[in-house]
Amino acid sequence: MSAPAIVNLAEKLASFSDHWNPRIIGRYNGNEIRVAKIEGEFTWHSHAETDELFMVVSGELGIEFRDGIRRFGPGEFVVVPRGTEHKPFAETECHILMLDREGEPNTGVNPSDYTREKLETI
Amino acid sequence: MSAPAIVNLAEKLASFSDHWNPRIIGRYNGNEIRVAKIEGEFTWHSHAETDELFMVVSGELGIEFRDGIRRFGPGEFVVVPRGTEHKPFAETECHILMLDREGEPNTGVNPSDYTREKLETI
Repeated sequence: MSAPAIVNLAEKLASFSDHWNPRIIGRYNGNEIRVAKIEGEFTWHSHAETDELFMVVSGELGIEFRDGIRRFGPGEFVVVPRGTEHKPFAETECHILMLDREGEPNTGVNPSDYTREKLETI
Repeated sequence: MSAPAIVNLAEKLASFSDHWNPRIIGRYNGNEIRVAKIEGEFTWHSHAETDELFMVVSGELGIEFRDGIRRFGPGEFVVVPRGTEHKPFAETECHILMLDREGEPNTGVNPSDYTREKLETI
């Protein structure tokens, strides 16, 4: 088998500009590695069958949980356990890396105007 | 459920200094999120039942595959598919983030002097 591809986060993030529209940049053990640019407030949602990892590449990520708000900077991550309601937000543009089970909707079990039916692989 | 913990990569990496001894810093969908400091050459190995993700936090990571060498810098990652032989190396100290299936030995199916029987969670 030939050597697997090198993936550069900055290059992937430079290839699109819209917000709340994650792109798939890799696959690992039945999960998708995604990047997204976010700004403003997302909608409350949870994922029934997958944990969700958020890692900040640049900017500041906020996540509201039912018991309060947490803020994350570059080099920090959080794993939101399946079933945990959360609402991501960013006061200024923030770039994030995510892990989700393959095919998981970005709004989990709570469809909204932010739901993306099919994510693009870049 | 209370809000999940924020994990800071630099803080976790600052808490140990030995090489080729990954620490577990999180769990996601049956996988372990690990960090390690590496320098020098590891041993050839493969993982039968898990893909393995390497992401560079600082320094330069080299991985030798049977068809050649690839080099990775900060903000770059690679997913080594299960069954793919590889040999990581670093000419100077390099800090990496990894994903592996829970309990996967660091040397996969090829035990060596570098095998760590049980990884510490920090």
